Amino acid sequence: MAELNEIIHQPIRLRTMAALVTLEPNEEVDFTYLRKLLDVTDGNLGAHLRKLEEAGYIFINKVFVERMPRTYVSATAAGRKAFIEHVTALELILKGK
Amino acid sequence: MAELNEIIHQPIRLRTMAALVTLEPNEEVDFTYLRKLLDVTDGNLGAHLRKLEEAGYIFINKVFVERMPRTYVSATAAGRKAFIEHVTALELILKGK
Repeated sequence: MAELNEIIHQPIRLRTMAALVTLEPNEEVDFTYLRKLLDVTDGNLGAHLRKLEEAGYIFINKVFVERMPRTYVSATAAGRKAFIEHVTALELILKGK
Repeated sequence: MAELNEIIHQPIRLRTMAALVTLEPNEEVDFTYLRKLLDVTDGNLGAHLRKLEEAGYIFINKVFVERMPRTYVSATAAGRKAFIEHVTALELILKGK
């Protein structure tokens, strides 16, 4: 039976990965953009991003822009692969397989 | 933004609903068949079925067959509707929308 990826299945993380994998490889999104897109708090998004980072699915890039700290997030190759596998499993399950 | 149904999103319940909605209206599956299909314990499946029943998404039919208790499960019209809405939301999210 098709196996769902428990890290990716959680709704906020699923939306995050979906948003990131539609970008070009190495393209990044700003933390604030993602927080507004997903309509979550800083702390909530931060916790979910750490979980995705620990799994090796995203890369979190902290930089200073005009002396202000900014955080950018991108999907890794492993993250793209895991997302595609999860979606494939999901599609099988939704067909009752 | 597309809203996921939290009751249906949980993996065991997602698989249960997917298995039930592929049946004809009013067609039932046996509890034991479902438990083997999903590879879960009696107690685990029972708890998830109760949650789906409380939401009005499934109908649980307890009967005696040759003096032995048997449990049959089917999707309700509300359950089919909720499942389709959930899948539609999921498809939008997977496209990054």
